[in-house]
Amino acid sequence: MPKDLNSLTVPLGFTAAGGAYGIKQSGLPDLALIASDAPCAAAAVTTTNLVCSEATLVARKHLAGGRLRAIVCNSGNSNSSTGPRGLKDARAMCATVARYLKCPVEQVIACSTGIIGRFLPMEKIQPGIADLLPRLARGPAADELAARGIMTTDLVPKAALRSVKIGGKTVHLAGICKGSGMISPKMATMLAFLTTDADISAPLLKKALVQAVNGPGSFNRISVDQHTSPSDTVAIMASGKAGHKPIRSAASADFGKFTAALAALCADLSYQIVADGEGVTRVIRIRISGAASDGDALRVARSIADSPLVKTAVHGGDPNWGRIVTAAGYSGAKINPRKISLWLGKVKVYRNGQPAAYELADAEAAVRTPEVLFKLSLGLGKGTCEFLTCDLSRKYIEINADYHT
Amino acid sequence: MPKDLNSLTVPLGFTAAGGAYGIKQSGLPDLALIASDAPCAAAAVTTTNLVCSEATLVARKHLAGGRLRAIVCNSGNSNSSTGPRGLKDARAMCATVARYLKCPVEQVIACSTGIIGRFLPMEKIQPGIADLLPRLARGPAADELAARGIMTTDLVPKAALRSVKIGGKTVHLAGICKGSGMISPKMATMLAFLTTDADISAPLLKKALVQAVNGPGSFNRISVDQHTSPSDTVAIMASGKAGHKPIRSAASADFGKFTAALAALCADLSYQIVADGEGVTRVIRIRISGAASDGDALRVARSIADSPLVKTAVHGGDPNWGRIVTAAGYSGAKINPRKISLWLGKVKVYRNGQPAAYELADAEAAVRTPEVLFKLSLGLGKGTCEFLTCDLSRKYIEINADYHT
Repeated sequence: MPKDLNSLTVPLGFTAAGGAYGIKQSGLPDLALIASDAPCAAAAVTTTNLVCSEATLVARKHLAGGRLRAIVCNSGNSNSSTGPRGLKDARAMCATVARYLKCPVEQVIACSTGIIGRFLPMEKIQPGIADLLPRLARGPAADELAARGIMTTDLVPKAALRSVKIGGKTVHLAGICKGSGMISPKMATMLAFLTTDADISAPLLKKALVQAVNGPGSFNRISVDQHTSPSDTVAIMASGKAGHKPIRSAASADFGKFTAALAALCADLSYQIVADGEGVTRVIRIRISGAASDGDALRVARSIADSPLVKTAVHGGDPNWGRIVTAAGYSGAKINPRKISLWLGKVKVYRNGQPAAYELADAEAAVRTPEVLFKLSLGLGKGTCEFLTCDLSRKYIEINADYHT
Repeated sequence: MPKDLNSLTVPLGFTAAGGAYGIKQSGLPDLALIASDAPCAAAAVTTTNLVCSEATLVARKHLAGGRLRAIVCNSGNSNSSTGPRGLKDARAMCATVARYLKCPVEQVIACSTGIIGRFLPMEKIQPGIADLLPRLARGPAADELAARGIMTTDLVPKAALRSVKIGGKTVHLAGICKGSGMISPKMATMLAFLTTDADISAPLLKKALVQAVNGPGSFNRISVDQHTSPSDTVAIMASGKAGHKPIRSAASADFGKFTAALAALCADLSYQIVADGEGVTRVIRIRISGAASDGDALRVARSIADSPLVKTAVHGGDPNWGRIVTAAGYSGAKINPRKISLWLGKVKVYRNGQPAAYELADAEAAVRTPEVLFKLSLGLGKGTCEFLTCDLSRKYIEINADYHT
């Protein structure tokens, strides 16, 4: 259990709950609730997949107001590709929560994750939500139940906590997330729910969130299997209860400090997703430098991260670096092979388009560690990217060939 | 052994040879030669990977003249990412063949396939070529030796033969190819060597070849693992010995007949590559219709074909169609979920953005066959694509995690 599993309700002004209601056949927790004591500033980034889940379509509408009281989330069924009935089900989930909290239905969002293309078992979900609402509470037990309620193939619950001093006051930022397969967020991410007691408006919160999810090693810089989910959502609620002077401008030092803390929180959660990727035995950190632009650096990093040949080589502990440089070559980015150099950990294996002199044993040692580092220098410009991915194992095949429809 | 393994020397005017010279540690055949009796029209399409092999760089220069006498090919080492020394080695291989055939060095191309980033073992290759040249011959034995000499992780040699009547004469088209992993050609392909006795100029031959490799289910419409190789090459030599009136115009009926036969030959060889993909147990045929454009149809097909989640579901015989429609959703193509319908074989599982009514057993039966068919209708326009891919198995991981550097 990560040390920060006590997270969501550490920022002032929030309660949480979670439990098992038979939505999953396994009997594991499948429902979570996060509520704010009062309507608060909220923002979210959601999937770029055009086949977007019905739950996400409803959530986007509700988030337009920039204010939330609660997030309700079920696992085991993603309410995706379900058409008009799916939209109605998502609204019904929000309505049940809104009635209890006595708030407008638009101040609640419902998130769903799991199998695609099945209607939600509303006969289990609605009584489950009704049972869960009175259990909303503060503290480690409630936080852990919420973190477990959103899990699918995750092996461990994922949570993180940060704090930052703003105007002499301690501002807390916390979050939980889930995700193990179907991870390639691209401008959004898997499910992550963040809370903070910062005092900040919804538009500034959105701006900080967009910067944070695009930071080095953050949600938009990870991929387990290149398949962008239809349900990806990072949502944040800010209660404003930390007691500091409100953050009023994106140009202020306070906004910068808050955004840096938020980026660190997101990178922490993102790492936990990759490390718990389906079948993962090694995390791969890819550092690109010298690209013609940051966009090109991202293209190269993603191409390497998504190559099954690169991922299986790392799984086998094989320093087969030709697969890395050729993945750069078909990425679509500007490339001059004569200017490329590559390090596996500290071992330089490729230098200006030619094999470097190195000991095979050193290169092998560099890829036979739990975290493997690729440093690729393109020698063209100032573009950089830091990206996280993982190896591809027999276990991934087992999990995904046997996952039940 | 495919029935058409007797192929390359069926078209009039060609000889072939192949053998084992210790380039591969396994002791399997690793060298092949294809020669024309006289200089003949030739064309090729090569990889779009910007990290292109040194062998391919030299071949492109030599092909600029549109005339070839011979192709020499080694397996076990791709002479890629090898810099100036690699360029010199490729030229030396061509020179050895040219001296024997008494032709300009530019009328020979050298192709190499295998591990990336190692210098060629020229002390084995040059004596091998010298030994092989006097063995150039016609007939099934020579054809099979050549087909085996270019194999890497292929389990079976791959060859195909077609004929077409042009001006009352029989024109033959033949080819061999290799490829099992690192298959995602994109405007070029893995190694394929084609011969024909058609009488056609080099520019028209190039035009026919480009059309053929982009045909339905042809080289540019297949992917085993989305990793575009740095060595991909399809080369064709036309001896002109079939005795028909020369094909003089791309607008002629004869050009159309020839190109159709060439496209059928390429699709035949492409299918053999996918069916022999690393660890493959099922071939997946993807038919896209109703896309806004052919380009969009290709984008959608490729996105589905390269999704590890789609490939593992098919491996497990699981009709988990949500993975197929969401792979369309992040493809970058224009999509309206409300207009999408999907069939697994003959079973309609998704209809205008909602789950269709179907029997699970029927859907399961449709994906538990050696060849699985996805038909995806986007309902937007007239764009179509036919694409081939394969499942992703534990065996693929085993092959690629244990492939030795």
